[in-house]
Amino acid sequence: MQLNKLTSVGMENVKLKGGFLGSVQDLIVNETIPYQYDVLNDNVEGAPKSHAISNFRIAAGEQKGEFYGMFFQDSDVAKWLEAASYSLMLKPDPELERTLDDLVDLIGRAQQPDGYLNTYFTVAHPDEKWINLRDMHELYCAGHMMEAAVAYYRATGKTKLIDIMSKFTDHVLAILGPEPGKKRGYPGHPEIELALIKMYKVTGDEKYLRLSKFFIDERGTQPHYFTLEAEQRGENKRDAVKDNMWSTYHYYQAHLPIKEQTTVEGHAVRAMYLFSGAADVARETGDLELFEVLKRLWDNMVNRRMYVTAAIGSQSYGESFSLDYDLPNDTVYAETCASIGVAFFAHRMLQMDPDRKYADVLEKAVYNGILSGISLDGKKFFYVNPLEVDPETCRKRHDHLHVKVERQAWFACACCPANVSRFYTSMGDYMYSTSEDGEIYIHLFANSKASVTLGDKNVALDVDTNYPWDGNIRIKVNPDSKGEFAIAMRVPSWCGEPSIRVNGQPVNIGEHMEKGYVKIRRVWEPGDEIDAFYPMKAMLVRANPRVRKDAGKVAIQRGPVVYCIEEADNGKGLHKIVIPRDVEFKEAFEEGLLNGVVTVSFKAYRLKDWSNDECYSFAQSEYEEVEVKAVPYYAWGNRGVGEMMVWLNEETRISK
Amino acid sequence: MQLNKLTSVGMENVKLKGGFLGSVQDLIVNETIPYQYDVLNDNVEGAPKSHAISNFRIAAGEQKGEFYGMFFQDSDVAKWLEAASYSLMLKPDPELERTLDDLVDLIGRAQQPDGYLNTYFTVAHPDEKWINLRDMHELYCAGHMMEAAVAYYRATGKTKLIDIMSKFTDHVLAILGPEPGKKRGYPGHPEIELALIKMYKVTGDEKYLRLSKFFIDERGTQPHYFTLEAEQRGENKRDAVKDNMWSTYHYYQAHLPIKEQTTVEGHAVRAMYLFSGAADVARETGDLELFEVLKRLWDNMVNRRMYVTAAIGSQSYGESFSLDYDLPNDTVYAETCASIGVAFFAHRMLQMDPDRKYADVLEKAVYNGILSGISLDGKKFFYVNPLEVDPETCRKRHDHLHVKVERQAWFACACCPANVSRFYTSMGDYMYSTSEDGEIYIHLFANSKASVTLGDKNVALDVDTNYPWDGNIRIKVNPDSKGEFAIAMRVPSWCGEPSIRVNGQPVNIGEHMEKGYVKIRRVWEPGDEIDAFYPMKAMLVRANPRVRKDAGKVAIQRGPVVYCIEEADNGKGLHKIVIPRDVEFKEAFEEGLLNGVVTVSFKAYRLKDWSNDECYSFAQSEYEEVEVKAVPYYAWGNRGVGEMMVWLNEETRISK
Repeated sequence: MQLNKLTSVGMENVKLKGGFLGSVQDLIVNETIPYQYDVLNDNVEGAPKSHAISNFRIAAGEQKGEFYGMFFQDSDVAKWLEAASYSLMLKPDPELERTLDDLVDLIGRAQQPDGYLNTYFTVAHPDEKWINLRDMHELYCAGHMMEAAVAYYRATGKTKLIDIMSKFTDHVLAILGPEPGKKRGYPGHPEIELALIKMYKVTGDEKYLRLSKFFIDERGTQPHYFTLEAEQRGENKRDAVKDNMWSTYHYYQAHLPIKEQTTVEGHAVRAMYLFSGAADVARETGDLELFEVLKRLWDNMVNRRMYVTAAIGSQSYGESFSLDYDLPNDTVYAETCASIGVAFFAHRMLQMDPDRKYADVLEKAVYNGILSGISLDGKKFFYVNPLEVDPETCRKRHDHLHVKVERQAWFACACCPANVSRFYTSMGDYMYSTSEDGEIYIHLFANSKASVTLGDKNVALDVDTNYPWDGNIRIKVNPDSKGEFAIAMRVPSWCGEPSIRVNGQPVNIGEHMEKGYVKIRRVWEPGDEIDAFYPMKAMLVRANPRVRKDAGKVAIQRGPVVYCIEEADNGKGLHKIVIPRDVEFKEAFEEGLLNGVVTVSFKAYRLKDWSNDECYSFAQSEYEEVEVKAVPYYAWGNRGVGEMMVWLNEETRISK
Repeated sequence: MQLNKLTSVGMENVKLKGGFLGSVQDLIVNETIPYQYDVLNDNVEGAPKSHAISNFRIAAGEQKGEFYGMFFQDSDVAKWLEAASYSLMLKPDPELERTLDDLVDLIGRAQQPDGYLNTYFTVAHPDEKWINLRDMHELYCAGHMMEAAVAYYRATGKTKLIDIMSKFTDHVLAILGPEPGKKRGYPGHPEIELALIKMYKVTGDEKYLRLSKFFIDERGTQPHYFTLEAEQRGENKRDAVKDNMWSTYHYYQAHLPIKEQTTVEGHAVRAMYLFSGAADVARETGDLELFEVLKRLWDNMVNRRMYVTAAIGSQSYGESFSLDYDLPNDTVYAETCASIGVAFFAHRMLQMDPDRKYADVLEKAVYNGILSGISLDGKKFFYVNPLEVDPETCRKRHDHLHVKVERQAWFACACCPANVSRFYTSMGDYMYSTSEDGEIYIHLFANSKASVTLGDKNVALDVDTNYPWDGNIRIKVNPDSKGEFAIAMRVPSWCGEPSIRVNGQPVNIGEHMEKGYVKIRRVWEPGDEIDAFYPMKAMLVRANPRVRKDAGKVAIQRGPVVYCIEEADNGKGLHKIVIPRDVEFKEAFEEGLLNGVVTVSFKAYRLKDWSNDECYSFAQSEYEEVEVKAVPYYAWGNRGVGEMMVWLNEETRISK
């Protein structure tokens, strides 16, 4: 088995042209990225103070003042810089490019002569560098700056930030590593692992790969670095493990060496960034064992610890995974960044193991768990993405206080907003891949043009679809010359009756299906056309019976889009609604609603309120018929504060 | 309207003779009270350290050492002393009496010359007395010591502890009060209010009533005492309100003057003790307005914020009420002490307003929410009484960590164990009342003999019943002379078809029913017999549709006993069980099970596990038939660690 099975077709060669995801990109390019830059410069009234750009100015000695913000405030700038670079790739903009150039220059001036770069330590705690890798995010911030460096390079061809981060890497290599006299440390918050591989791939410099592999290999080994480090800081043993009351270092995925881990544990975002970095290392080093470990972890996560929206993190405490099948809908964490991490992990696994099980989850994250993190106007954000909300409960119950019922202008800990920006602007990286066996993989479906290099051939793909509102996809295949190759079309697992035609001729799907991809191998000529029909209809989803909180409940999914019901359409008391066993859905595209969505309406029952004020009764329940309208989950909370539910009570008519 | 409508027949004149509650009393007298004394003396291996008696020895200067425990550790001793005094009343025991005498002497020696009594401050913080009424429980501990004093007096006729607490009261009266130069303070944790009324009733000394009324009247007035006091301690405003993030002083029921409160808020035990004390003050002062306020608070609590087990406190944070209809079953608080407080409050309201609505809740607390707090062997205790438990979830989810899945030998904060002891040993105080209109009220049903003084008459009652396992109650009525009076028999609200006979002749219940009591007024003669038939059958209870967490669920109640299903009888995955719409219950007394209980068995359905390992599916749910056995809730958790549920999923067969 080879792990470099697929190569992603980069966004340099993929252009979205309108359609649903194209509109999301346009929104982020035109609204979100300018807005976020204003926030980073503290120019948005009402938004929490960021000070992130000022911190760099102060570190560069060009502004008076004190560091402000989280000790990882730099990463907000880095993520924005990455997103803005992708934005440049999508839509050239000389003014934006000048802004990025200036920002990169500023970052360069904030770098210390020895290569060190982190404004928190430079400005506020110059004597405390590298003594607390567990908590202090120096490597995390550097990782984001490396990702920004690669994106900026991709957008502009300028290597300035790469050079800065190369110097930083040399500085790190002098301090950390397996060699005698160096600290055998690794980051408490993974991120740099995957970023180093990005640096490696654009520079070809093995030092990045070596460092990333060191971090992956060293993590969780004994004697435990975080313990040694804590002792050196003079912390007692109790302090060293204070962050997790159950077991040392689960929170950091450092409880065991990665290769010994069997379940996804701890802080959900950290886990995703770590496993994405580990997947990169597995691929680049051909480490099959590591790949198998990651498959096991993937399966544990997807089969037992993931919400139907591709969200992860079941509890607020530690923003973390909890236990198998523990998926509460209201006290959920489900951080936007965690679903983005899921997409990173999925995308990397998919390139090594072309199985739709990864692409299905990636697609779910794209249309649900990540997209819910941003408002329809592109300027407000969720950190936590609940699957059930009663605003009154969220206001008054202490264990619900982490669940905000409205998207926020910004956050004191602002990891999510710019993460959303960089994800959707780089959507083109996720859609197509090629293999060395002469295959073009189509993972995600969106109105787009792609220019794919396959061996010595160039193949232009032109995709037209109304996805995700219907599942008809027309692909014009235009190789620069006639020739044999395969197009591997993903058939989403939600699709029960797919059909595909090439130039009008049906393809035998069963015969050509491999791990959820229909491989159409033939001699392709310019002008050939694929028509895929993936009939979309609203369907009931049920959770594994082991999921306590979803027993007796159903969700509605239509294509990749998960639905919810909102107070705005259905009044208060959504928990009283019962969806009939033989529900009949009416589906309609409503142009004027929520920027245009397909709604799903149906007759249902609603538990009647009692005429008395008592809390308990021996009387039978009574129900009345009601019309219910469901809307896409990603669009919830855009019409004021109100209740929302994804999992609805289902009529359990069992007995005859 | 008069508020001293009923007078409780004290336990001096009521004797339980075997039967269910008699057995509970026997257990507590013979096992629990000796066990708890051993714990207080640190003689139980494996139990958390108490040190509570040692603290008194140290305060008395008779032992070296430091104070250990909570700053309200004294109250553990007081509550035990109260319970042990009741035990003496139930079962004379010279050795126990000597122990109590010695303990009271020790308490006397720990009292300071100025009357002050609190070992925490005397030993550890002598300079910090009376500067933090909000947090420091000096008045709370004194209240419990007063209750102990009254109980010890009732048991032995000895006034020594009453004298100690009288001196203490004088000390307090010199410091706190409405007079110029005194602090207008009141306790952060109510308790002394009701205790002072007990002191008033046995001594007739108005100073106790005056002080109690002052505390009730002053609470929540502006300028707010807790704020003034915090400022005097040099705390900033933020500290002064730190305990409650939503609104100042809800936690202490001090957010508003009591007469302006409309909802039960904050720490549930504090609320119950406060309202019980306020009820006492209303009665003793004839304050009708205060009584109406308490009725309003009662209704808010019972109709919107109480579990079906008569438990209260929906959230761990602040051990507190949350919002109307917020009654989660798994993250519940439902402290044992809070249900005891419910019984206190209910009992007091019942004496002013003879309405079964109070007695029904009292009875529910007796057989459910309080009784679940103690193990069948009398030596282990629950602090939190969940209505749904998955042990794995309780171990691994941070927001479930307050829910213990096994009763504990003791607690660092050990308020509940001795509270249970004093409650059941004083059961005789709760069962009968008399009115000035020549009525004997029978509130609770248990094998018992009572000697009731009604005007110039003495009436002996001899009750035989198998309650709560069946609802047949035979009462022999033996007045010392023939004469007219009424016996007011409560008809429990759970009973749909009650019938009552006197000497074999049916009583027209409808005609004689007043607020749930059937008043049988006639000329009674020695040897008359009442036979009440309150047919008990297992019934389905439904929660108000506004209770989100119980929508689509049912509980089982038989008589006053609420049932649960346990893993021990039904295997794992109790949430998969669905109770049929037309369930048929089989009820059987099982002698050998859980010290003898009526079980409720029925055919039900269970969601079938999936053959695959996926988390979500578009397939229909499948069910299999299963036999389910339910056991009384109070007895749960006596057969090892396992799942438990009170609210079961109900088949919602609505459509035709």
